[in-house]
Amino acid sequence: MAAKLYFKQRVMTPGPTSVPEAVLLEMAQPIIHHRTKQFQAIFKELSERLQRVFRTTGPVLSLAGSGTTSFEACQICLARPGSKVIAVAGGKFGERWQDIYDAYAKTLDLTVIKLNVPWGQAVTAEQIRQAIEQNPGVSAVALCHSETSTATACDVESIAAVTKETDALLLVDGITSVGAMPVEMDAWGIDCLVTGSQKALMLPPGLGFVGLGPRAIQRLTDVKPQGVYNLDLRRWLKSWQKNDVPFTPPVSLIRGQRVALEMIEAEGLENVCARAARLAAATRTAFTAMGLKLCSSSPSDSVTGAFYPETTPAIDDKKFRAGTRDNFGIHLAGGQSGRGAEWEGKTFRVSHMGYVDAGDTLAAIAAIEAELRRLGHKVEPGTGIAAAAKALA
Amino acid sequence: MAAKLYFKQRVMTPGPTSVPEAVLLEMAQPIIHHRTKQFQAIFKELSERLQRVFRTTGPVLSLAGSGTTSFEACQICLARPGSKVIAVAGGKFGERWQDIYDAYAKTLDLTVIKLNVPWGQAVTAEQIRQAIEQNPGVSAVALCHSETSTATACDVESIAAVTKETDALLLVDGITSVGAMPVEMDAWGIDCLVTGSQKALMLPPGLGFVGLGPRAIQRLTDVKPQGVYNLDLRRWLKSWQKNDVPFTPPVSLIRGQRVALEMIEAEGLENVCARAARLAAATRTAFTAMGLKLCSSSPSDSVTGAFYPETTPAIDDKKFRAGTRDNFGIHLAGGQSGRGAEWEGKTFRVSHMGYVDAGDTLAAIAAIEAELRRLGHKVEPGTGIAAAAKALA
Repeated sequence: MAAKLYFKQRVMTPGPTSVPEAVLLEMAQPIIHHRTKQFQAIFKELSERLQRVFRTTGPVLSLAGSGTTSFEACQICLARPGSKVIAVAGGKFGERWQDIYDAYAKTLDLTVIKLNVPWGQAVTAEQIRQAIEQNPGVSAVALCHSETSTATACDVESIAAVTKETDALLLVDGITSVGAMPVEMDAWGIDCLVTGSQKALMLPPGLGFVGLGPRAIQRLTDVKPQGVYNLDLRRWLKSWQKNDVPFTPPVSLIRGQRVALEMIEAEGLENVCARAARLAAATRTAFTAMGLKLCSSSPSDSVTGAFYPETTPAIDDKKFRAGTRDNFGIHLAGGQSGRGAEWEGKTFRVSHMGYVDAGDTLAAIAAIEAELRRLGHKVEPGTGIAAAAKALA
Repeated sequence: MAAKLYFKQRVMTPGPTSVPEAVLLEMAQPIIHHRTKQFQAIFKELSERLQRVFRTTGPVLSLAGSGTTSFEACQICLARPGSKVIAVAGGKFGERWQDIYDAYAKTLDLTVIKLNVPWGQAVTAEQIRQAIEQNPGVSAVALCHSETSTATACDVESIAAVTKETDALLLVDGITSVGAMPVEMDAWGIDCLVTGSQKALMLPPGLGFVGLGPRAIQRLTDVKPQGVYNLDLRRWLKSWQKNDVPFTPPVSLIRGQRVALEMIEAEGLENVCARAARLAAATRTAFTAMGLKLCSSSPSDSVTGAFYPETTPAIDDKKFRAGTRDNFGIHLAGGQSGRGAEWEGKTFRVSHMGYVDAGDTLAAIAAIEAELRRLGHKVEPGTGIAAAAKALA
């Protein structure tokens, strides 16, 4: 009997993603106090690097908490009380932003307009334009650039071209797009752009980042805060202008994030995005060659999702992902369910964000193919990986 | 000319505090996904250890964010809309809890009763009893067990004996008390107890912990949430009951916190608290021997604050603390200002929480004495440290 092959553990889930060793070690440095010159220098460099990654000359705030925390802060603070807001959903995260507006509908006197698209499809600029025209008085539009649950990306550039001609601010959940796909905050006219630390920015979870454009900053001065304290962006913006944060920040994560962004800028943001795009294209090619149907008709370059192939008996999601993990060290994400679809157990997802290369991606495709075959999918060995290698060549 | 003595860096600020090397290295482990058995086992152990440190059999939730985030969540979710709430302040943090109630006064229809005590004094159970009697319909009382800005502790046991006979829930900010001073959540009848990771629990900032007693859990089912999403404790409680969290958690911090609590339990919670108490007592003795006036008439055992002695010219706070840091590696906190007092520049503070021992404390006292002398305070060399050593003996 042949000895079992050793495999490294590869976290290929669309967040948390792998953290580079240099970042892990930076976070393991002895603690420093946040009201010191040493921390201020780190924080200033972080803020400047964030601006370059967000492609903005405006403020990018660093909030403690998850990506949801940060996006909620933007939803609360940038909606004009008594107005209408549009929340787009074509997946689990878009539905979450709808839920958040609903949670505040009474206290902020909001009319929440839910623009739903089928899961796996992208909202179009035309749909946004119509929704704004049909609902006079919209003060904000919230949507996902890359909807992680369905691995779908929309055309934010075209959408921003619509919103910037109206009074509606565009709030973009860039949690799985910033640092992995081109996002031009200033050039496209995005009013508010949010991401989290644990995706393309190569850090453990615990920080959220909020970029604010001029119209968003103006809105913050126009509306009066009610029912918000910690998440009051005015407070964070005021502190940021003094190179500070209003509450004790996650010092070790901030140290690590500075180093992770240094790595991104050393490689070059364009190169980082091009890498994700190539890995995503190769993965899609491989999946298609293996007879899998992609989740999305408008696929994101940060994550790829596919439906399990039809087999008898049906492939068990839990067994499949336990197999890629236990036999090949490949950690994948399963599907997610929401109001628009029940994809839990029916799809799986693999990430192309952050600290991941072609070697990792080929290893993942090989593991996926092997486990699908083991569970009954008919495909010639090597089909997926050969197609991927060809696409990468 | 003698060579300059080398000093290690000792972070003696009342948060962030020093993080043990074993905890730093645990956080530097490769990232794992949060929806895995490995993480679930870590999280379960953390939750159980938290219950033992909180001295409760009820849930202790782990929220991403600062201590402020967690306390705000409790303030919002546990106030009965349309009721009165009492917020006690005798320092900067108590004032913050007043500000948070004010921020929600309109949306939650709250009447905020501000019970102010002079900075450096502790609120009494009798004052709480009177405030509740004089204001029928109080649904919650929020206060600091250890007010970090003034290094003052109040008698939570006696206060809880009052509140538990009324309809008012007792919300205790234990951010600088849990893990450093005796706090018996269940035995005393505290309804809601909050702490942060970066104080006595020996972790970097980024996690807040919320213990909920039976009355608080009941309140969560009685009141209807409005204007809250991420900080909705119902969501966190529901997830906790399934050994889960509602949003991507700070995985690395949670790993580190498990190890830090393992260290606390290995030493023994009682021993850890006794250590803080002895270090605090020795520090107070030393300060008094050096002719310093303590900030508090009811001093906390987690942090000691003192006024600068009167000298001509007056001691410059910034120069003093830069001196202890640059000449002796001792990092101290300055004073804080608020509505009740202007102590910034007039006081300094040293922590006794977490990863700190008698050696660190003696080093701090020696540095404080040396720098005070350098800046003009008349005191015989060795006075402070001799008094401290005697107190510790």
